[in-house]
Amino acid sequence: MNEMEWLLETVRWRNGAVRILDQRALPEAENYLELRQVDPVIDAIRSLAVRGAPAIGVAGAYGLALGAPSNEQELRALAARLVAARPTAVNLRWAVERALRATLAASNEPSSWPHAARVEADRILEEDLGLSEAMTRHGAALLPARGRVLTHCNTGGLATGGGGTALGVVLRAAREGKQLFVHVDETRPLLQGARLTAWELRRAGIPHAINCDGAAAWLLKTESVDAALVGADRIARNGDTANKIGTLAVALAAKAFGVPFYVVAPRSSFDLAIAGGEEIPIEERDPGEVLDLGRGAGSAARNPAFDVTPAELIAGWVTERGVEQPPFDP
Amino acid sequence: MNEMEWLLETVRWRNGAVRILDQRALPEAENYLELRQVDPVIDAIRSLAVRGAPAIGVAGAYGLALGAPSNEQELRALAARLVAARPTAVNLRWAVERALRATLAASNEPSSWPHAARVEADRILEEDLGLSEAMTRHGAALLPARGRVLTHCNTGGLATGGGGTALGVVLRAAREGKQLFVHVDETRPLLQGARLTAWELRRAGIPHAINCDGAAAWLLKTESVDAALVGADRIARNGDTANKIGTLAVALAAKAFGVPFYVVAPRSSFDLAIAGGEEIPIEERDPGEVLDLGRGAGSAARNPAFDVTPAELIAGWVTERGVEQPPFDP
Repeated sequence: MNEMEWLLETVRWRNGAVRILDQRALPEAENYLELRQVDPVIDAIRSLAVRGAPAIGVAGAYGLALGAPSNEQELRALAARLVAARPTAVNLRWAVERALRATLAASNEPSSWPHAARVEADRILEEDLGLSEAMTRHGAALLPARGRVLTHCNTGGLATGGGGTALGVVLRAAREGKQLFVHVDETRPLLQGARLTAWELRRAGIPHAINCDGAAAWLLKTESVDAALVGADRIARNGDTANKIGTLAVALAAKAFGVPFYVVAPRSSFDLAIAGGEEIPIEERDPGEVLDLGRGAGSAARNPAFDVTPAELIAGWVTERGVEQPPFDP
Repeated sequence: MNEMEWLLETVRWRNGAVRILDQRALPEAENYLELRQVDPVIDAIRSLAVRGAPAIGVAGAYGLALGAPSNEQELRALAARLVAARPTAVNLRWAVERALRATLAASNEPSSWPHAARVEADRILEEDLGLSEAMTRHGAALLPARGRVLTHCNTGGLATGGGGTALGVVLRAAREGKQLFVHVDETRPLLQGARLTAWELRRAGIPHAINCDGAAAWLLKTESVDAALVGADRIARNGDTANKIGTLAVALAAKAFGVPFYVVAPRSSFDLAIAGGEEIPIEERDPGEVLDLGRGAGSAARNPAFDVTPAELIAGWVTERGVEQPPFDP
């Protein structure tokens, strides 16, 4: 595929609306939402129509362009509501606050704010595509010409403006001619691996097999996996990394069986204001997502959406700057 | 509940048939299969209508009583077909071979073999109930008066003749008055945790919450869990333990976060003929079980049904003899 064909249009501005590829309907249907108000954007972020730390950052920034605040207080309140849509990924806060600052710096005139916010959101999206380009270049260099990788959740074009983080590395390496086989954690409860990562891999023609999350440790032990690659929702100064629930188990198994475990994330996923992972808020989502298979009716469920992998289990953090090591400075 | 009420009739002999509580229909329906021929028993074992290492041992032994062999060669072939129904759990082989030996020792007359096999299968079932009684007594002594445990797959009455192994320990401790909260791994792909363990815990009135398998590591890190308890399908002389896929990940996390990880299994789950886990055959089941959620259509899937946990991750093996340590001798 050429550039135009492989790049996903996860989140775009089209005709005065935020246009979002509805990930809840994938892989069965490729539907686009056209959102012209803030509340539907917040709903889309909360309900995972758009998901992935960089992608929800872009969506949140565009959301700011859909409000009609009449003073600075209302604009700040709007930004705060967007930031609160999901608590763990720091990119959402980073992108919305950046768009807010640029909007306030552009003009004192509320009527011009939507345009100013949109221009800054456009910049954030453009930059995100460039960050994916840089990250995936650094990451692809870590992979052998032929080999196996294991990945968790979805970290491809769908998780970003279109280029990807961890899965973006695999997609790029394949475009460069590397022959890779991908073990895809299905990623319960919402199956971002089975639904979204597998869809991106089928689209790219890359050989892969889906496995239950509980099988990842055994596959890392027995399948000569060359690397485990994951994304991140928030990275603390010491390198502790919050990512989709199940990541910690993959990291423990990778360490135990000598498989290098890399985090691939842009610098906007780093929260240098916090020293370590214990300060990262972990979103607990609806128990119904766990009980959705309908077989545990009558029981309670726990549904932490993320976990924190301690820095010592991580071989390297692949950012737009290269393969980095903690402690991280601005 | 008194003894009559809590004991599950997982596998019994009733009116010339093997009567099996059909675990595929649980928790929605409590259906019993009445099987009068060998092939349906083999199907029931393969399709997990009856599952759990001790339970399939009992079912296999009763299966031998349903054949009509006319000579020793046919009887041995029948036994071999039963043993081959599932390859990983050693109890199936152990129980069928024991029933075979007893049958051949009882008489040279083929017409008396079904009765002789049934009598030995009755003994195996009776013994199994006694083994659960002993194992759960030793195991319950390891648990605090108030605390939390995490368990994987189903290891309760349903996995045995009725008394249970690892979950049997929890059920017994609760009957003794201990106040326990149980974290239940849902256990993909077939959800033995969400379907069966949660059903047994609801039946016993024990507080619990189901979690996705990928969340177990995070819960072990953050929830002050006192012990992780699992069953076993085959244990090598050095203590390496095959159990339901996902067990290895639980053991790695338990070790990392200082939670004692116990295997609860009768001596009939030990295969002292093999030195280590690398000799245990791992059943790879239908990829459709992984793709059953219908969201990965078009992709391949890997479906190893078991993994092997290295002995060094296991704090103790709770058997009918007590809490044991390797190397194991007969």
